[in-house]
Amino acid sequence: MSVQMHIPGVSDLTTQDKSPFALDQWYVAALSSECADKPLARTLLNHPIVMFRDGAGVVHALEDRCCHRSLPLSAGTIEEQGIRCGYHGMLFNGEGRCLEVPGQSTVPPRAKVKNFPVQERDGIVWIWFGYDQQAAPNGDAPSYPVHTSGEYVWGGDAFHYDAPYQLIHDNLLDLSHLGYVHLQTIGGDARVHMNAEMNTTTDGDNVLVVRHMHGVTPPPTYTAAYPFEGKIDRWQEIDFRVSHIRIWTGGVDAGTDDLRDPNRGGFHMRGFHGVTPETETSAHYIWTIATNPKANHEETLKKVMAQTAFTFEEDKVVIENQYQNMIRFGNQPLMSIHVDVGANRARFIMEKLRTIRR
Amino acid sequence: MSVQMHIPGVSDLTTQDKSPFALDQWYVAALSSECADKPLARTLLNHPIVMFRDGAGVVHALEDRCCHRSLPLSAGTIEEQGIRCGYHGMLFNGEGRCLEVPGQSTVPPRAKVKNFPVQERDGIVWIWFGYDQQAAPNGDAPSYPVHTSGEYVWGGDAFHYDAPYQLIHDNLLDLSHLGYVHLQTIGGDARVHMNAEMNTTTDGDNVLVVRHMHGVTPPPTYTAAYPFEGKIDRWQEIDFRVSHIRIWTGGVDAGTDDLRDPNRGGFHMRGFHGVTPETETSAHYIWTIATNPKANHEETLKKVMAQTAFTFEEDKVVIENQYQNMIRFGNQPLMSIHVDVGANRARFIMEKLRTIRR
Amino acid sequence: MSVQMHIPGVSDLTTQDKSPFALDQWYVAALSSECADKPLARTLLNHPIVMFRDGAGVVHALEDRCCHRSLPLSAGTIEEQGIRCGYHGMLFNGEGRCLEVPGQSTVPPRAKVKNFPVQERDGIVWIWFGYDQQAAPNGDAPSYPVHTSGEYVWGGDAFHYDAPYQLIHDNLLDLSHLGYVHLQTIGGDARVHMNAEMNTTTDGDNVLVVRHMHGVTPPPTYTAAYPFEGKIDRWQEIDFRVSHIRIWTGGVDAGTDDLRDPNRGGFHMRGFHGVTPETETSAHYIWTIATNPKANHEETLKKVMAQTAFTFEEDKVVIENQYQNMIRFGNQPLMSIHVDVGANRARFIMEKLRTIRR
Repeated sequence: MSVQMHIPGVSDLTTQDKSPFALDQWYVAALSSECADKPLARTLLNHPIVMFRDGAGVVHALEDRCCHRSLPLSAGTIEEQGIRCGYHGMLFNGEGRCLEVPGQSTVPPRAKVKNFPVQERDGIVWIWFGYDQQAAPNGDAPSYPVHTSGEYVWGGDAFHYDAPYQLIHDNLLDLSHLGYVHLQTIGGDARVHMNAEMNTTTDGDNVLVVRHMHGVTPPPTYTAAYPFEGKIDRWQEIDFRVSHIRIWTGGVDAGTDDLRDPNRGGFHMRGFHGVTPETETSAHYIWTIATNPKANHEETLKKVMAQTAFTFEEDKVVIENQYQNMIRFGNQPLMSIHVDVGANRARFIMEKLRTIRR
Repeated sequence: MSVQMHIPGVSDLTTQDKSPFALDQWYVAALSSECADKPLARTLLNHPIVMFRDGAGVVHALEDRCCHRSLPLSAGTIEEQGIRCGYHGMLFNGEGRCLEVPGQSTVPPRAKVKNFPVQERDGIVWIWFGYDQQAAPNGDAPSYPVHTSGEYVWGGDAFHYDAPYQLIHDNLLDLSHLGYVHLQTIGGDARVHMNAEMNTTTDGDNVLVVRHMHGVTPPPTYTAAYPFEGKIDRWQEIDFRVSHIRIWTGGVDAGTDDLRDPNRGGFHMRGFHGVTPETETSAHYIWTIATNPKANHEETLKKVMAQTAFTFEEDKVVIENQYQNMIRFGNQPLMSIHVDVGANRARFIMEKLRTIRR
Repeated sequence: MSVQMHIPGVSDLTTQDKSPFALDQWYVAALSSECADKPLARTLLNHPIVMFRDGAGVVHALEDRCCHRSLPLSAGTIEEQGIRCGYHGMLFNGEGRCLEVPGQSTVPPRAKVKNFPVQERDGIVWIWFGYDQQAAPNGDAPSYPVHTSGEYVWGGDAFHYDAPYQLIHDNLLDLSHLGYVHLQTIGGDARVHMNAEMNTTTDGDNVLVVRHMHGVTPPPTYTAAYPFEGKIDRWQEIDFRVSHIRIWTGGVDAGTDDLRDPNRGGFHMRGFHGVTPETETSAHYIWTIATNPKANHEETLKKVMAQTAFTFEEDKVVIENQYQNMIRFGNQPLMSIHVDVGANRARFIMEKLRTIRR
């Protein structure tokens, strides 16, 4: 099968009936820890946005532009009641209403900036973008109990990609690349990864890819973080959900547990991967990694975080390189192989969701 | 009032009847001190120009392109009689006439480059750009006796802005921003600046903004440079003149002098601000600052220069940030507030002067 | 005479009947020494190409794009039989045929990438680009016995130019610039170079420029590398050949040998200058320099290599500067002088060869 990827800069993707992005979705805007005492500027789905946490601890998202002289509000300062512009001091609350024009007794009603629906849950700040910009979100942002259940230690970071979000989806839905790209961390023998048992199922807009590898050598990150006896059985469960992907991987001593049992023991890594378009040609990759150390919780988390960040930097190099090459060569057909099933289904879903509903 | 700014990259500004710049004007090309033993390359109003001082001490401006193989003449060397190209050695005098083609006995009449009218006065090099490129300037370049009267010590520098000249005008004509942007130098309590007495008058193509602040705390630059007793009365006189702005600011011990009296005592800072478009989207900001030290002339000038340069670097960050945001958001209306009167009048004058006379 | 140069970014050059480049030519792709144990990525005449030396020592050139997910093959690894993609491990041989899709039992026939004809001769890797992409090369790549005769020691390097190849031709065909640009190495008195005897002949698509300078002071590189007695007689023979230029320069003690005799003694520098377009606006300059040391072969070669590299860096600065200025000023006529005869003839030949044969 030959797949035509509609990659911006490579082929036209926006038609009359298509939005550049799937809308009516909660997207990952930030990690909670990123919203502290300074404004956070981030362009999300082509909207330049400033996020800030007010005096009551609530995170807000406004258009990142003062209505007076267009300075980014993110260049200003956070106060108890809102955010103050750094040029002439206009103060805006979390709804975008101007509370004060310094030196002027009245505030004109036109003094306001656009705000966006935000929800903070389980350490993640979500933002809503709808086809109808006036409509309220049609439900709550997703929960992610891995962060709050107490079963795991976790950390995360926000990476920026000079590549469209679709290529990050491809990468995460096809973990067969571990044997070629991530030899120093979670990879290992390439043949093992390319020949893993793989099962792909689709449920609505979700895709689940499950891969099992039996009796294999644990890769460097695994042995650094967990006291395995020898060979292990490994699992990779990739749960694709439009705005983010949940990946549950791990290993147990070979032959000790059933890999299909969610209560299997051993070493667990639970990855949360928020893939949020910045523009049609760039993306934010906001991730966390959670694990279940046997001992030395802090030290183990440090190791797992460092190796995960290193792994994702490797992916970033590959994906940005891949995208530059797609631009160089233009819209040439791509040839799919056996490992691409999950990625191709996700691609199909994303294309479908870009259709504008009227 | 909502102002539509015709900012390049944001809205179209050049129509059939409009030049991108106000012409028939002397513009600031350089400080005299910049024209020493090396050619000075600078693009002014879209013209790439090389300036050089010949053996007789006269500064000239030529098109920065050798007519032979197009190398910039600014990559060449200055000689007694003119400037010599660094590729094959053709020598041009200040009028742009070729005096020598090395290895060739004759100089063809076509061997010449365009020159531009230049005048050097009071430490400033001025260049003339007219609607009619053949016509001579219709008068002398402006004088600036502050540099030559002996009353002041002064220094200056040339900054480059990745932003159109109009935004620098805005910034200089509205000094209310001092309380938010320049806290470490000439700012101070933001309320004082936003609530200053302000009087704006227009006279032909000039705009004069006068601001007074009574009984206020002197800001860091003032106390570093002058022995004030305690609270002071401050004045800011902003004199807008199309190609440059003269700003006379200062302070006296509170209640000692009438701020309306030009012979008032105290600490004086006289700023000269040449705002010369490089292109429609970038500008040169060629400035000097003069002051009247009580003692330690050299040391005080050093302090005032350092703090002024720091202040202008802060403005540069704000203005370039502002311009990038205007590009990001496109041509959205800007809301004016009370402090924008002078800036809006200058904007109106500049728009009017861009009209091509036939 | 005024020459209109068809320089990309300056004037349009590609018409219905014109290719951007002269085709049906062997071009210099690399030095042999560049093809070692790592893939070599280089864009040549707009084709992104990866070169690699297989286990049998043969150099191959493939399109630098895996047909699976578009990653550059140059990001992969060389194996005995070919090159393996760094993302999912597909292996391609030198003809571009896929030998293996890991984890998949069959290799689909569509799994292939384009290959290009390559020949390696005398330390140089040549690549063929034809008007008809299917046709075989119409002959062998050029030999260059200077590298292999044993008479000379030599070294080389590959430079990248942000300027079109035509400007490198101009520079190499007109050595009169040595007196202005290369004062520290092979230059010397500018008058001598501008007034050299010059004889230009054309033979088909070749141009030969011969220049003699009698009784002149040897320049720094010459005295550093050779024990001259005093004044010398210098020769410069520039042999232009479409895809590369051979320049034989040198000097003998003044009055001792006939400069027209190819067996003249003294100090010899034989330069090979592969000028290969990267794109219409950028070029590769792949050069070697050979010399005939009297003693201390290794040390003398080191000196000659260092001074030659320094000289070519000076040319690069001039040419890139020149090209930027041509872009700034647009397509203005250039005025030719006496030294431009050879360069203008080469330009004429290149323009002629760009005509597409049907």
